[in-house]
Amino acid sequence: MIKRLGKYTLEFEDGIGITGYGAVAGKKESEGMLGGNFDKIIYDSYAGQKTYEQAENVFQQEAFERALSRANKKAEDVDMIFAGDLLNQCIGSSYGLKSFGIPYLGIYGACSTMAEGLIMSSVYLASGAGSCCACVTSSHFCTAERQYRFPLDYGGQRTPTSQWTVTGSGSCVLENSKNGIKISRALIGKIVDYDVKDLNNMGAAMAPAAAVTITDFLRDTKTVPKDYDLILTGDLGEVGSKCLYSLLEDDGIDLKGIHNDCGLMIFSRERQDVHSGGSGAGCCASVLCSTILPDIEKGKYKNILFVATGALMSPVSSQQGGAIPAIAHLVNIRK
Amino acid sequence: MIKRLGKYTLEFEDGIGITGYGAVAGKKESEGMLGGNFDKIIYDSYAGQKTYEQAENVFQQEAFERALSRANKKAEDVDMIFAGDLLNQCIGSSYGLKSFGIPYLGIYGACSTMAEGLIMSSVYLASGAGSCCACVTSSHFCTAERQYRFPLDYGGQRTPTSQWTVTGSGSCVLENSKNGIKISRALIGKIVDYDVKDLNNMGAAMAPAAAVTITDFLRDTKTVPKDYDLILTGDLGEVGSKCLYSLLEDDGIDLKGIHNDCGLMIFSRERQDVHSGGSGAGCCASVLCSTILPDIEKGKYKNILFVATGALMSPVSSQQGGAIPAIAHLVNIRK
Repeated sequence: MIKRLGKYTLEFEDGIGITGYGAVAGKKESEGMLGGNFDKIIYDSYAGQKTYEQAENVFQQEAFERALSRANKKAEDVDMIFAGDLLNQCIGSSYGLKSFGIPYLGIYGACSTMAEGLIMSSVYLASGAGSCCACVTSSHFCTAERQYRFPLDYGGQRTPTSQWTVTGSGSCVLENSKNGIKISRALIGKIVDYDVKDLNNMGAAMAPAAAVTITDFLRDTKTVPKDYDLILTGDLGEVGSKCLYSLLEDDGIDLKGIHNDCGLMIFSRERQDVHSGGSGAGCCASVLCSTILPDIEKGKYKNILFVATGALMSPVSSQQGGAIPAIAHLVNIRK
Repeated sequence: MIKRLGKYTLEFEDGIGITGYGAVAGKKESEGMLGGNFDKIIYDSYAGQKTYEQAENVFQQEAFERALSRANKKAEDVDMIFAGDLLNQCIGSSYGLKSFGIPYLGIYGACSTMAEGLIMSSVYLASGAGSCCACVTSSHFCTAERQYRFPLDYGGQRTPTSQWTVTGSGSCVLENSKNGIKISRALIGKIVDYDVKDLNNMGAAMAPAAAVTITDFLRDTKTVPKDYDLILTGDLGEVGSKCLYSLLEDDGIDLKGIHNDCGLMIFSRERQDVHSGGSGAGCCASVLCSTILPDIEKGKYKNILFVATGALMSPVSSQQGGAIPAIAHLVNIRK
């Protein structure tokens, strides 16, 4: 069962175990800071398929299969799978996962999807509805770029605030397990709109959502940043991370020294031309499942906050003058 | 808490109450078979906004506000809202609901979204995570047509198997209530792909998913169609309904006389030029919330199965030669 702490925080009384995880990434990611951590590198952007969208399906399948294998489970052991991605109508997930024959609930949280999937899986398991759940998400530079921005051949100049969409996927298998890595608390974010309209500055658009979510969680749980080994945001990048520090400072919350951002971790911003950092639903998913969860398992971290952020606009809403509404979901992971 | 029946069925031990519901529809829907049942008709396709997409936001707001008012709740009483729609990146929901400031989880189930939202809300409440939840979905003829098919001005000829996207929205408020309309059981569907590729025949693409879900549920619960007052599919239309009968007959299951389809109910197929029937996430949502739930409240039905179907393709996946994967989620509603 779940208890409520304060206004928004959910507490899983016995914790929900993350018993398996898998992360798959592309060539550019393999050349970044975490290259050695991924379970598999797919060097071909097409992953042997005819289109980039079909390649993204393969990334999801491979990540999910690695998560299954680490949990020592088969697809038929999984009661429910929560999945989504950035592609219109979430075809990365529906085509990627259809062959597994698992009851499927599609979710859409843009780049916050990994945290959304972890929360939904945890709620599902806490309700007694099942004993084994999974979540998956992905992004692919080539599918995202051509859907959200420009044709790939166009070679448009990128602004310094822009981020580079990660080609990668992450997946977790969750169970009602008392040992190992556990989700102990979570907070489901509200949609926050600070009227940022620059599509090349997603970090600035999403930082306010992260600030609201972190503030709500710390207030609800009566904790401070120093109570955690790491506060890890999804993909704010350099610009968004600075916005976040500034917004939280106004509330007297200092994240420096405790905060990192998946968008800042995955690439080498010195060697690789990614401007403000990495982004995409596959960014925080693949960083979490390749690096952070193993580090928790090894004891490097004992108590972290994973705060995945998402920008909920579309090219159409932007063309119609809409600002970028954002959301941040938080998962407290411990060992 | 939730118990499992058989392989896939979830049973909510005390039932989850649907304490409020609201349905809003457009002009064409007001001229159909259920015109008098909607809480509000918005005659202007733009709903006073500058674009059809912004109009869809208004439909969601109005439906949610009516559901709140019927449940005698305010937005701040709602712990969680589950919402999604057919628009790329689900902007019907994110822009429509952002002003309410409620913790938000985006879902994507295409036209099955209403059932997905009801199931997720029920699981959330059964877990103890909250005491009041809501779900919302919508579709709009003008936004769907131009996103999925042709520019509105093009005036393309429609094939006889095609369906007409409903302009409408439905919303429910759910609570852990022991009285009134209750969700007692549910089944989360698997993705089913029978290799149907005709984008003008969604009914045929979705019927196999409905057949699998209904068969699984009847097997799990050891019930037969006659145990229910009504088995209501989402938007199979005439062609899809016939496919469903034929598929189920092969398994010895006869739905005739007990089955109806929201896509067949909403429009007058004699007076209105809708070919195989209505469709869209707003179709089954607005039929359920305008007609079926009030009928259950009045005692016309005591035990129904609401089986919402969704087609999980995108224009891109279709252009790349992909078939149409489909899904059907089932909710057993009683009084």
